[in-house]
Amino acid sequence: NSRQGNFIYTRFISAGKCHRSVRAFSASSNEPEEKAPHFKRSSVVHPLSAHIKMVMQEKPYTLPHPIWTESELNEVTITHVKPSLFVDKAAYASVQTLRFFFDVFSGYYIGKFRGTLNEKKWLTRIIFLETVAGVPGMIAAMLRHLRSLRYLQRDHGWIHTLLEEAENERMHLLTALVLRKPGFLFRFAVIGAQGIFVTLFSAAYIISPKFCHRFVGYLEEEAVKTYTHCLECIDRGDLKVWAKTAAPSISQKYWQLPEGAMMRDVILAIRADEAHHCEVNHTLSSMDMDKQNPFEPGK
Amino acid sequence: NSRQGNFIYTRFISAGKCHRSVRAFSASSNEPEEKAPHFKRSSVVHPLSAHIKMVMQEKPYTLPHPIWTESELNEVTITHVKPSLFVDKAAYASVQTLRFFFDVFSGYYIGKFRGTLNEKKWLTRIIFLETVAGVPGMIAAMLRHLRSLRYLQRDHGWIHTLLEEAENERMHLLTALVLRKPGFLFRFAVIGAQGIFVTLFSAAYIISPKFCHRFVGYLEEEAVKTYTHCLECIDRGDLKVWAKTAAPSISQKYWQLPEGAMMRDVILAIRADEAHHCEVNHTLSSMDMDKQNPFEPGK
Ligand SMILES: [Fe+2]
Ligand SMILES: [Fe+2]
Ligand SMILES: [Fe+2]
Ligand SMILES: [Fe+2]
Repeated sequence: NSRQGNFIYTRFISAGKCHRSVRAFSASSNEPEEKAPHFKRSSVVHPLSAHIKMVMQEKPYTLPHPIWTESELNEVTITHVKPSLFVDKAAYASVQTLRFFFDVFSGYYIGKFRGTLNEKKWLTRIIFLETVAGVPGMIAAMLRHLRSLRYLQRDHGWIHTLLEEAENERMHLLTALVLRKPGFLFRFAVIGAQGIFVTLFSAAYIISPKFCHRFVGYLEEEAVKTYTHCLECIDRGDLKVWAKTAAPSISQKYWQLPEGAMMRDVILAIRADEAHHCEVNHTLSSMDMDKQNPFEPGK
Repeated sequence: NSRQGNFIYTRFISAGKCHRSVRAFSASSNEPEEKAPHFKRSSVVHPLSAHIKMVMQEKPYTLPHPIWTESELNEVTITHVKPSLFVDKAAYASVQTLRFFFDVFSGYYIGKFRGTLNEKKWLTRIIFLETVAGVPGMIAAMLRHLRSLRYLQRDHGWIHTLLEEAENERMHLLTALVLRKPGFLFRFAVIGAQGIFVTLFSAAYIISPKFCHRFVGYLEEEAVKTYTHCLECIDRGDLKVWAKTAAPSISQKYWQLPEGAMMRDVILAIRADEAHHCEVNHTLSSMDMDKQNPFEPGK
């Protein structure tokens, strides 16, 4: 019964066919230790966190993904692939322009300059960027899947890697959401940004997958820079709350972090993921789209 | 070397970051046993089949999916969920209307009546329908992924099941493509049908996921009928070529068919998959979209 967690399902065998009837209970209804004040009365912990935690512990349905060793986590460095083709230059210019305006208008530049980036500001930035980061992998996977169906061709093994990236970015988002619940205006901005980005990225992927993977490659170079800066802030003692914050349970499970892991370990794991996406996307951009994807599941 | 198959990749460790350089060779260049007359001179075997076969044997990157037992395969029956809500009735009417016109215009009705459905006609029908069948799972997975990012919500474990369905349908398609390579006009129809179906299904899924899962549930009821009829044709001796055709290697691998499996075993496995999608989609349609998906990976 504990294996089934908050689900009870019964199988009726009738006429040789299996029917499953499902009753799902809310996490709090049968798990008294999860009870907490209603989220509207509690401003610290995101109301999703308890649910996320529970479900992740019960059934791991995430795709395979790399589990980083201590040395892999610490050896991540800021890298740069020199743009050579026209699409590379266009991708690099797009990313640099986007980052410049985003950093100015989100207050990251000023905050970095003045040293006023606190945990709240970091989470706001991370949550916003991760809602965007989850888009490319899923759109690319969908478009390649549809292309395979439409042109009666093989996919050459790209889809699983793209889906793994998309899920991984969504896990970054869910991790950050455990620590902070954004307000109304922010949510509005996220919805707007997704509308624009999904439209433009889909159109761009149909026109030039090479441009898109290079674009994501450069985006991930910036992500590595940002998370490296975040680690520096933690190590400098600027983020006093995070210095004492344990890794959320969902993150500990997902990245298989050791006992007693802290937020710094979570940020290290996220940064390693971003460096991996960077390598993957630069590699895919340099390949013909009908060549075999060299990345195996979870690698 | 044989593990790596037709890929050679080297890892350079530089500045703590891993770069992978990839050289991919065509399957025939280093695998003499795969050599065959150029596909333009050979009309029987689809040119993709050798490639598909090879890659599947080297690295299984497919998602988890059910492997059916002998009794599960044979106990599949035609089922029907009575429409109760308005969306159910609308979904049922849509599927019945679509099937009626498709059966009339594709010549399936006449063929069934006259008993002139041969392997070629079956494959044409199967290939066309499977290019459509692969759409809903991927579109639904993408829309739920984007919704999770956009509304900062959990997905509640639906995405993996939807992706498993999409991939499974694409495997049905790749299996059929091993046996037949469609011509120009047919390919044109597939591209057109996908354009229309992707647009309508995406719009419908945004408006009513319940309608869409019910629609797929009814579509799969029809798929079970069709594949049951196909099995009857084989058993009646109408499909003399398939009676002597071994299961394609890709199918044998994917469904873990026993040694000496024939086309009949492939059709049995596909029918069991369709019955499973039927159960899954009827279940999902009857659930609120923020309830936990009861289907575990590969189940
Ligand atoms: Fe990320
Ligand atoms: Fe990323
Ligand atoms: Fe199918
Ligand atoms: Fe199906």
